[in-house]
Amino acid sequence: MHKRTLRERLIGSPLETHRLSSEKLDTPRALAALSPDALSSIAYANQEIFLGLITAGAAGLAYAFPISLAIVGLLIILAFSYAQTIHAYPQGGGSYTVASENLGALPGLITGAALLLDYVLTAAVSLTAGVAALTSAFPELGTHRVIISLVMLLLITLLNLRGIRETGTLMAIPVYLFIGMYALVIGAGLLRVIIEGPGGYDVTLASRPALTSVTLGLVLHTFASGCTALTGVEAISNAVSVFKPPESTRAVRALRSLALLMTLLFLGTIGVIQLIAPMPVGDETILSALTHKLFGSGGMYYGVQISTLLILLVAANTSFTGFPRVASILAHDGYLPRQLTILGDRLVFSNGMLLLSSLAAVLIILFHGDTHALIPLFAVGVFLAFTLSQAGMVVHWIKDGGPGWRMKSVINGLGATATGLAFVVIAVSKFLDGAWVIAVLMLLLYGGFRVIHRHYEGIASELTIHGLHHAIKPSPALRLVLPIPGVHRGVIYALRYAHTLTADVTAVYVEIDPAETDKVRRRWAQWGEGVPLAIVPSPYRSLINPFLAYLDELDKDADDGQLATVLLPEFIPGRWWENLLHNQTAWLIKLALLYRRRRFGKVRPIIDFPFHLRH
Amino acid sequence: MHKRTLRERLIGSPLETHRLSSEKLDTPRALAALSPDALSSIAYANQEIFLGLITAGAAGLAYAFPISLAIVGLLIILAFSYAQTIHAYPQGGGSYTVASENLGALPGLITGAALLLDYVLTAAVSLTAGVAALTSAFPELGTHRVIISLVMLLLITLLNLRGIRETGTLMAIPVYLFIGMYALVIGAGLLRVIIEGPGGYDVTLASRPALTSVTLGLVLHTFASGCTALTGVEAISNAVSVFKPPESTRAVRALRSLALLMTLLFLGTIGVIQLIAPMPVGDETILSALTHKLFGSGGMYYGVQISTLLILLVAANTSFTGFPRVASILAHDGYLPRQLTILGDRLVFSNGMLLLSSLAAVLIILFHGDTHALIPLFAVGVFLAFTLSQAGMVVHWIKDGGPGWRMKSVINGLGATATGLAFVVIAVSKFLDGAWVIAVLMLLLYGGFRVIHRHYEGIASELTIHGLHHAIKPSPALRLVLPIPGVHRGVIYALRYAHTLTADVTAVYVEIDPAETDKVRRRWAQWGEGVPLAIVPSPYRSLINPFLAYLDELDKDADDGQLATVLLPEFIPGRWWENLLHNQTAWLIKLALLYRRRRFGKVRPIIDFPFHLRH
Repeated sequence: MHKRTLRERLIGSPLETHRLSSEKLDTPRALAALSPDALSSIAYANQEIFLGLITAGAAGLAYAFPISLAIVGLLIILAFSYAQTIHAYPQGGGSYTVASENLGALPGLITGAALLLDYVLTAAVSLTAGVAALTSAFPELGTHRVIISLVMLLLITLLNLRGIRETGTLMAIPVYLFIGMYALVIGAGLLRVIIEGPGGYDVTLASRPALTSVTLGLVLHTFASGCTALTGVEAISNAVSVFKPPESTRAVRALRSLALLMTLLFLGTIGVIQLIAPMPVGDETILSALTHKLFGSGGMYYGVQISTLLILLVAANTSFTGFPRVASILAHDGYLPRQLTILGDRLVFSNGMLLLSSLAAVLIILFHGDTHALIPLFAVGVFLAFTLSQAGMVVHWIKDGGPGWRMKSVINGLGATATGLAFVVIAVSKFLDGAWVIAVLMLLLYGGFRVIHRHYEGIASELTIHGLHHAIKPSPALRLVLPIPGVHRGVIYALRYAHTLTADVTAVYVEIDPAETDKVRRRWAQWGEGVPLAIVPSPYRSLINPFLAYLDELDKDADDGQLATVLLPEFIPGRWWENLLHNQTAWLIKLALLYRRRRFGKVRPIIDFPFHLRH
Repeated sequence: MHKRTLRERLIGSPLETHRLSSEKLDTPRALAALSPDALSSIAYANQEIFLGLITAGAAGLAYAFPISLAIVGLLIILAFSYAQTIHAYPQGGGSYTVASENLGALPGLITGAALLLDYVLTAAVSLTAGVAALTSAFPELGTHRVIISLVMLLLITLLNLRGIRETGTLMAIPVYLFIGMYALVIGAGLLRVIIEGPGGYDVTLASRPALTSVTLGLVLHTFASGCTALTGVEAISNAVSVFKPPESTRAVRALRSLALLMTLLFLGTIGVIQLIAPMPVGDETILSALTHKLFGSGGMYYGVQISTLLILLVAANTSFTGFPRVASILAHDGYLPRQLTILGDRLVFSNGMLLLSSLAAVLIILFHGDTHALIPLFAVGVFLAFTLSQAGMVVHWIKDGGPGWRMKSVINGLGATATGLAFVVIAVSKFLDGAWVIAVLMLLLYGGFRVIHRHYEGIASELTIHGLHHAIKPSPALRLVLPIPGVHRGVIYALRYAHTLTADVTAVYVEIDPAETDKVRRRWAQWGEGVPLAIVPSPYRSLINPFLAYLDELDKDADDGQLATVLLPEFIPGRWWENLLHNQTAWLIKLALLYRRRRFGKVRPIIDFPFHLRH
């Protein structure tokens, strides 16, 4: 029976390539698969708006609703703008594709870098925000939030390495649970306001003095944080092809539904919070405080928190689709290591997933699992990608023309302008908080793309068979050098093998202990099959250097410009630890030859002739 | 100009083999070179006797002088006994040589194991005892004793890896400084007793109740610890050949002087301590307390402490001669890895030195640099080696006869009996304190010797050319398999190289993406020089397994029973990090073939054909 390896237990048996098929989804299930990132953003955006304004007390918190209106305005512009991308790119118009096709390589690569960083941040922020929902309900877990986040990251990684087939159905549950739960929260909040009347923050915070006053800077800063609510909106336009036909129509419909849902949930929660004025205790989130105030500490409260955790986990999961896909496209174009294009055992881009998982883990550890600390790094990349992608669409319409291209380019131009303005606000107001880290990382990534691309292009030009001529004259005869440590059975076998390759064999003995030389010479005369034996003195008892010097001499004398081939007789002991009992000379010679190959750029083939020891 | 490597800066340039010469020493310098281990033992033996008896208060400490008399009695017997070894083995009669030549392999190996452990312990104990002398003078360094010991160990290791040429002259300074300093201490002590009269421990400890009473167990236990004073006595008999002629006569004279010096210093210090009754403060050593009481805290005090530190460092240094020598003899006999017989760049057994240094460092760290904790492990091995070596001498005289053999065997028999009794006392009284560790380690070492020896013997029998017949019929023609990742310049070069070796070449393409196959097939038809191309399907996208399966099939069909040779075209990028941008397929194939070679025990040669990339 086939014994399952640890690898197979964890991620399942390998799948055959022909099972790579794309399941087509109807609109509700596709919406469920593509919306978690966008919907769940509401959780941390809410939290950021509250944390941003509370320093200015009740007067500050009064700005929450106007700010959220501005963000929703931006959302509506984006929805119109991306609807056009859907129509133009029915195969799926990722921001990298749109930007590089229409704006050129540089903006394309900048967008690619921004996307990669965003996917890592989405995974990290969603996980930590999900854990914050959990620790709001169970504050005693608060000290373990880093570990809890990492364990959840590990689970998501393993699930994705297995290849989650059930994108549509299973994922729909947490999404619709989340929507339902927050509909209840908003409904209950509005009901309470109708019955009891509003009890705004001017009442709740009456006794607490504000730390700062409301300035334009504070409002813009909070707006910038709140813009994280819009992350994930582009997901539908990236994946038009997962919809059942007519794909574009269904996708636009889904995008509209998503925008509507986000508007309702975002404005609804922010509005109810304004009217009811809950106050978080300790590290509790504002949404947890709201739910507490509405429902107390019963099952309903825990239901809301769990649904928040679940949708955030699903949102983190979406990075495991997006990151490896973008990475594989960049790798396919020669900007990232080719290994990222390999489909793993389970038909997913395993290398990309492992890379994403490692980077997200690093972020979680560096930022102590604190969502609020991660947020300043987040929105800047997303909005840069939005802007470049929309700008790319403008160019697309101008170049391609077609019916109504003017109107279309105006709409995308409006999108590019709005997101571009938001990008500037975010970049400036968050620069010192952490956006500079993203600027530095993007520059490094861009530099890395270029270096990698130059390497692959260089290789391609070296490997091309263009300009290669068919061999006319036969290749020169093989010259073979056989270094021997003495005369024993393994050496004789190697010598016999050498004779099947060429008649031009020279044996080389490096003389470390001159007392041994005579014996070696005598035995070689008997067993050497007439092959000449060169004795190389070694005054410093080194084996490698005299041998390499001998090879150099030999090659200098050769008239065909070819380096001689080295035939290395090598022991392979029966048990691994027995290697410790041998000098590993063969390995050292190989290493030295490799190093010299690097230095001289010439080709010296090495033949590894193993002598398998039973002992 | 030759740029010096870090290695050369640390341990100097390589030395030529012919500079390996043995300097001959006159008696005083030879004594200085060979006595530090024995002389310095007095420092920790004194300390152990004091710590052993203080628990029984003044009544216990009264036994110090009688115990030291017993130890000196043992010393005199040993001196007579080893004088005979010197005469019998003028080339140097190490305990391993004497025991294995006269008693056989088993006692020889036991002695060898005991010696190796003892050398490691000598290094560790001498260093920590030296640091204890230092921290007695500067108590604020006490918390850093592990680090200080390790730094000193590192310095001694580097000096020894350079190869210390100056054994005779430079080493003589600390030895004679130590003797002079302690002569002053003993003289001053006796003077003080004469002037002021004795002030024994019954006065000093009058107010302190004894923790235990004086029992036979306590006395024997203290005797066992005090026996560490005798470690190093055998050094002269190991190295008779370093004396100028007449070697044996000079060596015996040196041994007598050593015994006399040890007797005077040991009895002198113990006696003065008894009469003056100094009390150590904190972690201070008893010898430091004695010096304090005699000389106060002036320059004289620091001089004595520094001379103690220095001789202990020189003693630790002697392990760096002894351990690598014994290890190289055992390795030469096939009981330890052969690497231990290699003379390094500076004509010393560098590998043995590095091994010793690592093991001593482990001991120092495990025992927190505490001499007292290390002592129970120490004497047991030394006395086992003494006993077996003297017993070997008895057999030597009985076997060889010669004038006066009866008397000689009686003297060595007395030595063997006395050291044997001491061994039993030490082993029993120290067993639970730590001697069991040595018992376990010796068993493990002995087992290791046997396993290694069996391996080397097995190899020798596999490698012997006895029974090998001269090849009559020519070897079968070479069958070559060339796995190709596609058709590019590197592959074509490899193919041309293949044709210099044999006409029987098959190219193999593992089909991971079937969309590529047609292109590969077409280009191979154009460039493949008529070599057949096998297309191997890979439904699970693995490269290695289908290729290995193909090789198995191919070899099954071969009628000559030989495995086909694999020719691996391999990229060598110009810069090391560029390896990260490639799949390392060649390396993975080599690894897989190596693993299968192990499993099937058959020989498959691999030809590494590098294609050097400039990019």
